Amino acid sequence: MNHARRLRALRAQMKQREIEALLLTHLPDVRYFTGFTGSNAVVAVTARRAVLYTDGRYTVQAKEQVKVARVIIAAHSALREACNLLESLGVGGVAFDPEQTTVSTLHLMRSALKYGRRRRNFFRPLDRPLPLLLRLVKDEDELRIMEKAALEGCRLFEELLPYIESGMAETAVAARLEFAARTLGAEGMSFETIVASGPRSALPHGHATSALLPRNGFVTLDFGIILDGYCSDMTRTVFMGTPNRRQRFAYDAVLDAQLAAVEAVRPGATCGEVDEAARSVLRKAGLAEHFTHSTGHGVGLEIHEAPRIAAGQAVELVPGMVITIEPGIYIAGKFGIRIEDMVAVTRQGGKVLTPATKALLQL
Amino acid sequence: MNHARRLRALRAQMKQREIEALLLTHLPDVRYFTGFTGSNAVVAVTARRAVLYTDGRYTVQAKEQVKVARVIIAAHSALREACNLLESLGVGGVAFDPEQTTVSTLHLMRSALKYGRRRRNFFRPLDRPLPLLLRLVKDEDELRIMEKAALEGCRLFEELLPYIESGMAETAVAARLEFAARTLGAEGMSFETIVASGPRSALPHGHATSALLPRNGFVTLDFGIILDGYCSDMTRTVFMGTPNRRQRFAYDAVLDAQLAAVEAVRPGATCGEVDEAARSVLRKAGLAEHFTHSTGHGVGLEIHEAPRIAAGQAVELVPGMVITIEPGIYIAGKFGIRIEDMVAVTRQGGKVLTPATKALLQL
Repeated sequence: MNHARRLRALRAQMKQREIEALLLTHLPDVRYFTGFTGSNAVVAVTARRAVLYTDGRYTVQAKEQVKVARVIIAAHSALREACNLLESLGVGGVAFDPEQTTVSTLHLMRSALKYGRRRRNFFRPLDRPLPLLLRLVKDEDELRIMEKAALEGCRLFEELLPYIESGMAETAVAARLEFAARTLGAEGMSFETIVASGPRSALPHGHATSALLPRNGFVTLDFGIILDGYCSDMTRTVFMGTPNRRQRFAYDAVLDAQLAAVEAVRPGATCGEVDEAARSVLRKAGLAEHFTHSTGHGVGLEIHEAPRIAAGQAVELVPGMVITIEPGIYIAGKFGIRIEDMVAVTRQGGKVLTPATKALLQL
Repeated sequence: MNHARRLRALRAQMKQREIEALLLTHLPDVRYFTGFTGSNAVVAVTARRAVLYTDGRYTVQAKEQVKVARVIIAAHSALREACNLLESLGVGGVAFDPEQTTVSTLHLMRSALKYGRRRRNFFRPLDRPLPLLLRLVKDEDELRIMEKAALEGCRLFEELLPYIESGMAETAVAARLEFAARTLGAEGMSFETIVASGPRSALPHGHATSALLPRNGFVTLDFGIILDGYCSDMTRTVFMGTPNRRQRFAYDAVLDAQLAAVEAVRPGATCGEVDEAARSVLRKAGLAEHFTHSTGHGVGLEIHEAPRIAAGQAVELVPGMVITIEPGIYIAGKFGIRIEDMVAVTRQGGKVLTPATKALLQL
């Protein structure tokens, strides 16, 4: 990872927006700009300095990982010491990300300052989340890792298929999947694995339970792995037994919607247009009311990042973005279906990073 | 879980502190008071009402899970609709938890109000985190689940031991452990499993990597499972091969420190006293400088909860609290050792919930 380049990009943005100093407190941001993966860190950034504060647990690790910033082990509070440094540098103000800073943290930041009278205006919320905006477009290193993570996810899914059978607990399916993920070297799962079977497939976020896979019904598998800090995300819905006409019609509609949205991915398209591409297919099939969530989201160091692929979103797609396309329908008490790919935006259009088959598999 | 009782306790506290209305936005709080486990929810609580707002993904699930509050599926924003409700009820102000509310969220809350002039003072930060304080002392239902989670964790550790051998990757150890956890029905791990071997054991938070277990050296295993939403947490450090005198001396010192801190747990003892019990043992052994973190933390629906078992903490232990006791030492480039139990505070003193042996195991 070229952290020096990222820090340069951040400083260029800071200069352009006349931001003299920036406080990074959100750990994925810290990792993105410095490479540090510990659980406590604050980074103070100015045009000429970058200082990472952490605590004694990370003395060895921080020095190993961080090359672009000076590392200081805070005696008491990383946050307080970072604020003190920025105050002592004489900067006029410090920008922070209001979406990643709690009201309490802001209070702590203010109370760390020594000159009370200017506390109120010293810390200034960014009107747009600068670190996240830089993370929005992935660089080559990131794309390489994310492609690998997505592909490994597909392989895990394909290797899992022969083991899935009626009467097996959802948790047993999740266990096998997660074991295989770990064995191939994943740092973990990017979120709690969803295995939602039979009527439970109508729960869009149905985490694996002790419920048994049905003789006849859908099973939705939604999971992701973390490789080198980056998340993958994919969903496939398979069928145990033989679907009836209504079930097959619904599956085909979701698949058509998913394909239409993938097709709509290209530089310059708005996120709202991509959402509408999926939604309009389901509308024509008379199923739009059952599509109760947005079409997708950005993914990267975090499982949910910008942009949101949702109705009305005016953000335009740019090469280097990585998003999910995951329309689904949910019919309470009956069944649910969701199909999800990770898609990289390229100059040529959307590149599906999760090539596992989307044909309806009958197990 | 007796959510009605918890909500009554919350209202009693609100009354005592003259809090007319409270907004719950932190998901573990939402789960604690209502039973809802989805990933998006806001609860508005007054003396007479409790309304949970979520989104269309959770229509079925919310109605299944939530008995103590009215459930409303928000058309656009759960947060906004909850704020609108509270405003329309004519309450004078609404308390929120500043530690769980971002600056952006507070801004959204304020901008949701229709009467601009009173926006500034309508939302009031709690000076003490009321929901967390109620969660501090576990009720019988919680203690039962947490005891079970801790015990299952021990069983997993004991069943893992025969498989641990030199040359095995740290991730393979984590994989086997997590597979076994899933198989017995855990919803997931309570944090990213730590397997830190050889010189890596000197990293207090060394997540499992592709590093191979040494022929001769310590291996630290720190992990927890989630059962019914509740986290377990335990650490054992084992030795591959035969420790030298210095290594054995260090292990014995950490174990003595851990036992001393467990012994110090009793109602009325301060968290600082428990920390000092561990720290003074390591001081006498000349190892205090290598004990670079606090002695422990509360645990429950979240892996890190109040209280903090750290130097100078004046909070007194109360029966029903569940804490970790986990002193450790870390000698950069050489080795590290940590031993951790989950301990419930009872009238009689500390009850260790993780009875797996703490004698130095040589594998």
